[in-house]
Amino acid sequence: MTHVLEPELLTREAFAPFGEVIEAEGARHYPINDGTTQRFHDLARVDVAAQDGVALISIFRGSARPRPIRLSLMERHPLGTQAFYPLSHHPWLVVVATGDDPLDADALLCFAAGGRQGVSYRAGVWHHPLLVLESVQDFLVVDRGGPGDNLEERRFAPGDPVLIAL
Amino acid sequence: MTHVLEPELLTREAFAPFGEVIEAEGARHYPINDGTTQRFHDLARVDVAAQDGVALISIFRGSARPRPIRLSLMERHPLGTQAFYPLSHHPWLVVVATGDDPLDADALLCFAAGGRQGVSYRAGVWHHPLLVLESVQDFLVVDRGGPGDNLEERRFAPGDPVLIAL
Repeated sequence: MTHVLEPELLTREAFAPFGEVIEAEGARHYPINDGTTQRFHDLARVDVAAQDGVALISIFRGSARPRPIRLSLMERHPLGTQAFYPLSHHPWLVVVATGDDPLDADALLCFAAGGRQGVSYRAGVWHHPLLVLESVQDFLVVDRGGPGDNLEERRFAPGDPVLIAL
Repeated sequence: MTHVLEPELLTREAFAPFGEVIEAEGARHYPINDGTTQRFHDLARVDVAAQDGVALISIFRGSARPRPIRLSLMERHPLGTQAFYPLSHHPWLVVVATGDDPLDADALLCFAAGGRQGVSYRAGVWHHPLLVLESVQDFLVVDRGGPGDNLEERRFAPGDPVLIAL
C-alpha cells in the first residue's frame, strides 16, 4: 500500500521532540567583538561523549533523488547527536519517526526546512538520510566519531512505498 | 608605527600550525546513503572536553569594519577549539599570531579565506575576532560552553595601528 507524506513547515516547536532547529531567525542573540558581531548563541548542543565519542565537523554533499521522492530507509545514531546545516540557501526535507517503529508510515513526519534552517537530531531519533531538492546541496555536519556502534538502519519494504508529496 | 599585513591565500598547509581548514575541495570523501551523498569526513575535530566543556553550535553574524581594516585585539580560547564556516560564499579574513606575543605585529599572519573555506582554531591559538568583507556575513560556529575561563584578550595600542592591505 502506498503512503504519501505531506511536508509541513519546520518550526522549533514542531521539531522539539526530535531535536533542535538551528536558525538565527527568532533566536536570542547578543553583541560580541566590540559590537561588530551578533552571536546567536547555543542554537544546538552537541552531545557525543558517550563511549569516548568525539565531535567531528564534516561536509555532506547530497544529490537529489528521482521524483516522486521515495523513502529508502530510516536510521538512528544511538550514541550521539547529528546536526546538519545547509550551505546553500535551498529548502530541503527532514523525515522523522514519531513512534518506536521507524517503518510505520502512519507515524512519520516530513518537515520542509528552509535554506537557512538546520537541524540537530537528538541521539536515538529515527530519521531518514539526507533529502535534498536541488541537484546538489552541501551541508555542514557535526556528528560523532569514536568507538561503539552508532548506526542502526531499517529499510522500507519494496511493496510498501512511502512517497513525499511535492 | 603603522604595520600593514598582506593577506595570503588560505591553504591547509599554511594553516596547519593553527588548526584545520574546513573545505570539501581536495578533501577525502566517500559515498553514504546508498550513494546519494558524499561524505567529506572529519574535516575538523572538535576538542572542548577540558574542564567539563560541551560543544555548542551557534551562528555569528559579522558586520564589516571601516576600511582600511584596523586590527582591534587578539584573543584565544585556552580550553577548546573554535570553528567558523561561512554561510554566504563571500571571502573573509583570518588573522593569527605565530609567536607567543599576540601583539607583535611582525609575528602576525593574515589569510584570505574563500567563501567555501572555514577554519577551526586549535585551543590556545591567538587569533583576531571575526573579520568579514561584505556588509553582513553569517557563519556557523562550533565552540565550547561550560565552566572555566575560556577567553583571553589583548588589545592593540592606539598608537601602533595594524592595518590590513586590501
